[in-house]
This record gives sequence, structure tokens and C-alpha cells, in this order.
Amino acid sequence: MSVYTEVSPRELSAFLDDYALGTLRRHEGISAGIENTNYFVSTTEGEFVLTLFEFTPAADLPFFLDLMAHLAERGVPSAHPLANRAGRYLSRLNDRPAALVRRLRGKSLEAPDPSHCRAIGAALARLHAAAADFPAQRGNDRGPEWRDEAATRLTGRLSREDAALLEWAIAEQRGAGGDALPGGVIHADLFRDNALFEGERVSGIIDFYYACNGPHVYDLAVTVADWCFDADGTFDPARAAALLEGYHAVRPLLPAERDAWAESLRAAGLRFWLSRLLDLHFPRAGALTHVKEPTPFRHVLVAARDEVAVNAVWPGG
Amino acid sequence: MSVYTEVSPRELSAFLDDYALGTLRRHEGISAGIENTNYFVSTTEGEFVLTLFEFTPAADLPFFLDLMAHLAERGVPSAHPLANRAGRYLSRLNDRPAALVRRLRGKSLEAPDPSHCRAIGAALARLHAAAADFPAQRGNDRGPEWRDEAATRLTGRLSREDAALLEWAIAEQRGAGGDALPGGVIHADLFRDNALFEGERVSGIIDFYYACNGPHVYDLAVTVADWCFDADGTFDPARAAALLEGYHAVRPLLPAERDAWAESLRAAGLRFWLSRLLDLHFPRAGALTHVKEPTPFRHVLVAARDEVAVNAVWPGG
Repeated sequence: MSVYTEVSPRELSAFLDDYALGTLRRHEGISAGIENTNYFVSTTEGEFVLTLFEFTPAADLPFFLDLMAHLAERGVPSAHPLANRAGRYLSRLNDRPAALVRRLRGKSLEAPDPSHCRAIGAALARLHAAAADFPAQRGNDRGPEWRDEAATRLTGRLSREDAALLEWAIAEQRGAGGDALPGGVIHADLFRDNALFEGERVSGIIDFYYACNGPHVYDLAVTVADWCFDADGTFDPARAAALLEGYHAVRPLLPAERDAWAESLRAAGLRFWLSRLLDLHFPRAGALTHVKEPTPFRHVLVAARDEVAVNAVWPGG
Repeated sequence: MSVYTEVSPRELSAFLDDYALGTLRRHEGISAGIENTNYFVSTTEGEFVLTLFEFTPAADLPFFLDLMAHLAERGVPSAHPLANRAGRYLSRLNDRPAALVRRLRGKSLEAPDPSHCRAIGAALARLHAAAADFPAQRGNDRGPEWRDEAATRLTGRLSREDAALLEWAIAEQRGAGGDALPGGVIHADLFRDNALFEGERVSGIIDFYYACNGPHVYDLAVTVADWCFDADGTFDPARAAALLEGYHAVRPLLPAERDAWAESLRAAGLRFWLSRLLDLHFPRAGALTHVKEPTPFRHVLVAARDEVAVNAVWPGG
């Protein structure tokens, strides 16, 4: 987030009266994430995370909160939303939709090693399995229309080389065959800062606010795009192989997914390159907001254009 | 429990296939509790507790599991049942109903001090508040009919003094006015071994398999009967005062509850003295079973006959 909305102790105490979670001790804005306002909230009874939804469409919030509950109840280490005294996961605070979850243990990793990548791959496969019987659906709002609109907005703001790469990548994705791939509800944003670890074990998966229906292999590609590339764009085959093997051991990957692998990784690189370019060129108002660097995902896109390197790490060679 | 039902690694692995919780690492019977078979289960993905229901009527299990889910979703530090691939909290293993929960952190305390008692009092009040909108109801199966039947079964097995005390206590409870007291769903068994602590904070409340509808002050009395009496029957006014104050600070106690306090404590003493006498005189078959000593609850009953000591600790004097 980045603390778009200030919440005073008095406002938060009044909000907590609608839950049975003890009295407020302290709260602190969380300076990570770019879509919502998040606070760590400490009460006499425990540690919680408060989210105020700034940009997420209100109509989508039940999908996200119900999904978090569904996954938590199936053993995915995600935070189960807390119900208020009216029995609802969704409340309001300072004119925004708001939700409260118990704070999960563990820390996110800046420099994961292959064993962490293997664990996050397995956790993603379990998430896909646990979501199989989730009854609701949600389209990907970072899909083809969004890409076209983003490219239009960026016209004239990119270097000639970047504009050409973008045009090529968007055209290439138009021919991609995502519909024929196995899919279901996917996280769609399982970056390092959305996973918590205790030692070698994944203790938390957070931030489900891009979750949507889509191909499983695309979710895997998003995860590899963040976990297996360094900030300078270097691809780490050892981490990528471990992540894919961890996934494959829980949900065996199919030949059709192998065929779509490089294309999926290009889709992932393109999606995050585009959204970071938009954040850079059209910054949103708000205190503490971090604008993240687009370049790493340009590197993902370019690396995945050279299919050889990324295909070499596929389980089974 | 006490491990009534052995579960082999092969049986448990097959059972876990119906969840998305990783593969079995190890499991270990838990030698506490007297009603169910419990195992700690460790998988590649986390730590869980497996319960096989030995004596609990199958018709009551949805009440207990739904209650645990309801309370966990309202921030009570109880374990949320995990759903299997069919979306159900209740499974079967070795011909018994079975359920799986994530293992909660913390340890139960053998020697709580007043600050722990204050915390458990507050946690009990929050549990009562969080249960207020739980839609199902369940009668107390350790109520008047059960008492009468237990006394009949024990005829001829008690000393003359014990038999007279039992007769007096049962007759006295017949005139008790529980129906007029504020109530709702209560835990009804919040003993030290059913609460987990991390430092001064309650990190877990477990074993909801006696939960039923009843007066809140009776639940408070059950809790005091275990937390504020030592094994030799000595009443600790400092711990009792702290427990009642902790409760009162969250849900203020009413004059009618004060009037019913000593009577409620006698009801609690009687209920557990009786069930432990039954366990002692009519032991159930099963490996590792612990038979617990009835005498401490005889002391509770006798102490609450002398209303002065127990009333002195009521908040406000």
C-alpha cells in the first residue's frame, strides 16, 4: 500500500468496537504494496492486519475475502478474514471498504535460495488444488483489453526501442492460446513480498487482490518472473528449476503447459512491465507511495523471448 | 483423548490425500484429554492436530466444528477446522468421524499466575461475545438428568460422607435458577489444558466438544473451578479475583450473576466431581487413558458451600 488513508487511534478504536478483539495498543502503516492502505494493528488480544481498499472495485471484494476464507479453511497458509459483529468480513472505515485479518507469522525474503523457491512452487500448486472447488469466478482485469489500453496511454512516453518491444509483445500475446490450458482461480501476484517464510517453510501467502480465473501455468510464470530473476534482470536457472520442480511434485505439469511456458513468462513480464510503466508515468496521489522500477520485468520479457534459457529449466528437461 | 484408536502412517497418508496439506512427515498420539483420540500431525506444509471422535455423538459434530469456525472467524484464538477436498470439515478415518485443524502455537500452563487468570477471563468474555450470533443451539448433556443418572450409577460406591454431600448438592441444584441468567453458547470445559499461552497472551482455546447453551456465569464458574483451585483443594482468591476482573472488564457482570455465583461454582464442582467419579468407578477401555482425580472438584463444591470465600473475590467486592 503505502498509507493512502490516515487512520487515527480514536477512529481505529471505534472500528475495533465492532469486533471482539480486545482494545487497541498501537497501529502502524505498512509501506509495502501499491494498491491498498494497510496497517499492522496490535490489540490486547493479538496482532492483526487492517486493509482499507483504495482502488479495488467494491463489487470484487466479496470474491477476494471469500477466496481467502476458502483457502485458509483448506490449509493454504493464507489469512482468514475476521467477521465483524454483524457476521461480515467487509466493514467500512474512513469512507473506505475495510477488512481485518489475523497477522500471519514469518517474514518475506529479499534473496530466496533454491530451497525457498521449491517451497513456494509447492505452495502455489497447493493453492491451485485448494481453489479447485471455489464456487465464484472473476475475470482477469489485467488481460488483453487492459494491455491495449495501457499501451495507448503510454504512447509517446517510451523510447523507440521500448515502444517496439511493447508492440511486438502485445501482438504476440494476441495469438497466445491460454484458453486451452488447465486453469482455475490463480493468485496472479505471488511475488516475494506476498509470501512469508519461517525457516524453509512457507508460513503465509498474502495479498489476494489480483486473484482471478486464469491458466495455472500463467500463475507459475508470474511467480518465476519475480522469484527467479535478480533486480539487474539476470535469470537464475537454479532457482527457476527448483520452483518448477516444487510445483510439479504437487501438481504434475502437462505437455501443453510446457509448450505454453515461454509464452506465459512473456505474458507475465509484459503484465508487470506495463503496470509499473503506468505507475511511473501516471503516479497516484498518496503519502509514502513507492513507485517500483519497471525494468526488471522488461528483462523477464526479453529473456522469455529467447525461449532456450527459460525452457531449459522445465521439469524433465 | 489418550489414543483410543491407533492410526498407521499408511492410513494417515491416505487420509491426508483428501486434503492439500503436503505429505506426512510424522505423527504422534497426544496423551491428554479423555474423550477423543488426538494426534499431532506434521506434514511438509505445517503442523496439524487430528481428532478421531470416540464418544461424541455424530449428530453433535457439525455444531462443534461450525462453532470453532465461527469463533475463529471472529478473532477468538481457536483452531479453524480444515475442509477436505469435498469442502467438509468432517471426514472419516478408521471407522470414526475425524477432523483436522491447524495446530495452534503456545503451551498450556500448569501453574497460572493472576495475570494469566486475568487473560483467560478476558478471553472467555470475548468467546461469549463472539458466540452471540452463532445460529445453532445445543443442550447441556451434563445437566440435571445426567446428574441424576450419574448419582444412581454411583450408589453404593461412595463413602457415606461423599454420598451425603452428593445428595445435598444435587438437591440444591434442583432449586437453582439458571434459566433467568444471561447466557448463550458456552465452552463449558475451559480448563488449563484447554488453553494455550504465549507469554502473557492467550494464543489458543481448544477442545470445544462440551460446548452447549447455558448461563455465562456457569462457564465462568467452570473456569474458576479449574484455574483458581490448587490440586489440594486450596482456593486462591488472588487468581479468582483476577479471572473475574478480566472477564468483567470485557463483559460487565450483572447483579443477578453475582447472586448466582456461589451456586454456579457448586454446579461446576458437582459436574466435574461426578464425571471424574464415573471415570474412576467405570473406566473405559483404551490405551494410554489417564483417569483424573475427582477430589479437587469435591473441594470446589465444598468451598462454594461456604459462600463467603468465593463471593469475596467478586468484582466490586
